[in-house]
Amino acid sequence: MAIITIVGSGQMGAAMSYPARDCGHEVRLVGTPLDREIILEASKTGMHKNLKRRLPDGIKYFQIEDIDKALSGADLLISGVSSFGVEWFIKEILPLIPENLPVLSVTKGLQDTPEGELIPYPWLYQSRMGNKKLSINAVGGPCISYELADHIHTEVCFCGDDIGLLRKLKSLLETSYYHISLSTDVMGVECAVALKNAYALGISLSIGLAEKQDGKLHYNAQAAIFGQSVKEMGRILALTGSLDESIVFGAGDLYVTVFGGRTRLLGTLLGKGLSFEKAMEELKGVTLESVAITKCTARAIKVQIVQNRVKAEDFPLLLHMDDIISNGTAVNIPWSKFESETIK
Amino acid sequence: MAIITIVGSGQMGAAMSYPARDCGHEVRLVGTPLDREIILEASKTGMHKNLKRRLPDGIKYFQIEDIDKALSGADLLISGVSSFGVEWFIKEILPLIPENLPVLSVTKGLQDTPEGELIPYPWLYQSRMGNKKLSINAVGGPCISYELADHIHTEVCFCGDDIGLLRKLKSLLETSYYHISLSTDVMGVECAVALKNAYALGISLSIGLAEKQDGKLHYNAQAAIFGQSVKEMGRILALTGSLDESIVFGAGDLYVTVFGGRTRLLGTLLGKGLSFEKAMEELKGVTLESVAITKCTARAIKVQIVQNRVKAEDFPLLLHMDDIISNGTAVNIPWSKFESETIK
Repeated sequence: MAIITIVGSGQMGAAMSYPARDCGHEVRLVGTPLDREIILEASKTGMHKNLKRRLPDGIKYFQIEDIDKALSGADLLISGVSSFGVEWFIKEILPLIPENLPVLSVTKGLQDTPEGELIPYPWLYQSRMGNKKLSINAVGGPCISYELADHIHTEVCFCGDDIGLLRKLKSLLETSYYHISLSTDVMGVECAVALKNAYALGISLSIGLAEKQDGKLHYNAQAAIFGQSVKEMGRILALTGSLDESIVFGAGDLYVTVFGGRTRLLGTLLGKGLSFEKAMEELKGVTLESVAITKCTARAIKVQIVQNRVKAEDFPLLLHMDDIISNGTAVNIPWSKFESETIK
Repeated sequence: MAIITIVGSGQMGAAMSYPARDCGHEVRLVGTPLDREIILEASKTGMHKNLKRRLPDGIKYFQIEDIDKALSGADLLISGVSSFGVEWFIKEILPLIPENLPVLSVTKGLQDTPEGELIPYPWLYQSRMGNKKLSINAVGGPCISYELADHIHTEVCFCGDDIGLLRKLKSLLETSYYHISLSTDVMGVECAVALKNAYALGISLSIGLAEKQDGKLHYNAQAAIFGQSVKEMGRILALTGSLDESIVFGAGDLYVTVFGGRTRLLGTLLGKGLSFEKAMEELKGVTLESVAITKCTARAIKVQIVQNRVKAEDFPLLLHMDDIISNGTAVNIPWSKFESETIK
């Protein structure tokens, strides 16, 4: 039995308590300042108000003020913050983590640099810690939080620099329903699973277009954009020096993200003809990782285009999505730009 | 304006008449001996009984006896037969095709050899023609026939040996909704789009399992199998010496195939616990490309396993599907075998 402390008690962070408890570990769930009510309710009733599920029995709940107690003696820290909580996590939590406490982050996202590079969060964390050395690992792959809570078969990938540590983390968390691949290609896995949020938005545009046209779902158009998404994701992975095979986790993740949630809703509204501004009004209060990742990836690619390192015609879908989001451009899928010519 | 003769008036063959007519060509639609009623009804009423759509105006209809007339002066022959019509096409139609008439085949499938190789249909056709030389090209990629008929945006890939001819075929058939990539990687494109039928069956197993469990759709499990499918498809493409990038057409095609049709139905029945025999009874009279391609690919892989050219553990999903189909094994998804360890 180990002690696993989860910081960030949103849906995904909280869902990690299911495999952790099923493996018999002590689980300490710590809310961020935004999670105050979640922790309050869960500690009283066991119910998670957003996940809409009863959390596993035996979890110890902590408000953020008590994080020191929650970290004391912990064997693993799981970071459950969303990409919008990354700066908070860097400033408030990283300094508290002892060097011998490994971190496993569920946060999906990337940060771009002025030079047009993309940085996965584990590397970002490392770069912001000065001389301190932590082992920052991350979880990628298709995992809807409430399905994990419901013990639906799920396969994810733990990535990090040290395969030995990854094997240990896997042994701590694998269950009959939570299946874990391992990879030391941190950039590849993190890039693939972050990009899926951007490209799921792209596929959803065609869902909205179809709804506007005749109210039906049209799969040919979705599949065409799915194929283009895999193409562009593969190109971005190649730019970052990732292994080609890491695309697999992004492809599975893209598959699952299109089926529901806020990204599909935004893409559908845009596809139906709403401007980005109007669509965001309809989604008021909703944080959208897909918008953030689209803008950040497009910023990086546009820098690389100016530097003649890549060609704009290799990223027509990404650049169109960015135009919609950043410039208020109307949806007009650049179908003919998706056509390729391959000579073997 | 060109003359385009389509042999095989099933749903996909007939659907090709939409872009062909929209491009202003003369279209001659020839039924196989199995299509007699389709041709009879369409020639009288314009309706296609299986596609459940009105075919474009101006098509000239032919029963198989009149194929000579339909071929006379044609600029392009589109083969619309299913994989179950391939032997018929080889024996009855190939001998009639003049050497200067290019062929574009919509048939998806592969043939295995006793040596464990997989052969795409264009190569099979060529190998069965003796000294005769035809230009056999093929269409891959995600395309549901009735969506093409409804002018839904669709992106396919024409593949063949001669990029110049492919460009000409594209110029004959591209429309505002029918988008065409080109590739000379015939093996890669054909292999990817054939395999998607097998792997769509695999994903559908989890749909049936979920239905049995609680009547809901569970996307984590589907996405896990989707990811594994892309992995195994990529490995098979690599074995055949194909370009890695050709997987894109298979991934899009896999995405679309899971959403409906007979393969999903069969996989769902199997996942719900029916034996293959019972499931096939329920689907009486339905021809299943997914079963044929699973068996043929598994046969080839099993030969290569015996020859120590590949490892069984690299194809756990394919081999499990083959066990279900060929040996009546109960569905028991080998989740833990999907886990991988990647060292960069």
